Amino acid sequence: MKIKSALEFSHQLLSESIVAGDTVIDCTTGNGHDTLFLANLVGKNGTVYGFDIQAEAVNNTKALLKKNHVETDHIYLYNISHAKVDEVLPDETMISGAIFNLGYLPGGNKTIVTYPETTIAAIKGCLSHLCHNGVVIVVAYYGHPGGEREKNTVLEFGSQLDQKRYSVLKYSFLNQKHFPPILMAIQRID
Amino acid sequence: MKIKSALEFSHQLLSESIVAGDTVIDCTTGNGHDTLFLANLVGKNGTVYGFDIQAEAVNNTKALLKKNHVETDHIYLYNISHAKVDEVLPDETMISGAIFNLGYLPGGNKTIVTYPETTIAAIKGCLSHLCHNGVVIVVAYYGHPGGEREKNTVLEFGSQLDQKRYSVLKYSFLNQKHFPPILMAIQRID
Repeated sequence: MKIKSALEFSHQLLSESIVAGDTVIDCTTGNGHDTLFLANLVGKNGTVYGFDIQAEAVNNTKALLKKNHVETDHIYLYNISHAKVDEVLPDETMISGAIFNLGYLPGGNKTIVTYPETTIAAIKGCLSHLCHNGVVIVVAYYGHPGGEREKNTVLEFGSQLDQKRYSVLKYSFLNQKHFPPILMAIQRID
Repeated sequence: MKIKSALEFSHQLLSESIVAGDTVIDCTTGNGHDTLFLANLVGKNGTVYGFDIQAEAVNNTKALLKKNHVETDHIYLYNISHAKVDEVLPDETMISGAIFNLGYLPGGNKTIVTYPETTIAAIKGCLSHLCHNGVVIVVAYYGHPGGEREKNTVLEFGSQLDQKRYSVLKYSFLNQKHFPPILMAIQRID
């Protein structure tokens, strides 16, 4: 066994938390890998919401879903900021999982990145719809300009959450150079 | 699913790394729970070495093994410091796992604790016998006087390990008061 990378561990936590029929959110669809992963977890009776500020990302996600023959009538992709997650989701909708991959679009324009303020707004939006035992997972790539500040803002936000309502895990590698991604997982426990 | 505590996650990593017939080490036998756990993983064809500076801990461990009807002819318990692990193990012996629970003996004398210098010596001893993909896991309880320094010394040691030889994971909870234990896992990757 190899100890799982932050990305692999994010998938483990999602797999353990999400069951067929659930509603979930990919807050940074990127090239669509997590949207596809979530679509397979919730199945055709579940619902996936996906957000990305870049049209290229949304198009790449649609193409990946099509290539994998995934039915998309229950997958809603939005080319808007994930900060609007709470505006888009119906008030009564509860989610069992949400995933963020912070940084820039792999293979895309490296100057277009996620930002702390909108990321925190998006995390808050997800938390307001999170069901008992549901998880909001943030995988932060932070080697780019501003990435360190964003990572620290997210970790500080997690550190301040009420321990009676949320359990906040940090999963990180200590001895790797070149900014390996870190994972933060927020689980609702009340 | 509940996100695993540091203790539960240590057991997950050990379970994934150790198979029947392996040789493993409990560097702080305490009340014997991890020794028992390791004994069950390696089975009667495996070997468990256990260390504890307190005779009370070694006796508690023996009692727990007996209570659980574990054959003990392949379990070697030493009432000596874990700093001597490298002296005790035969040179050619390779281990697939080792576990440390740093702090004081639960239910015992709270003034008798593990110390950074001997802990680091013990970790080094384990690393010198660690096989490919083997793991050395440290669960640090650090709410007692000196505990914070010990935890930081251990994390600093892990941070300095060569990333070509070892992968060093930190697993910790960010929003809990009262010093929840943190986990550090060192996996040999070369």
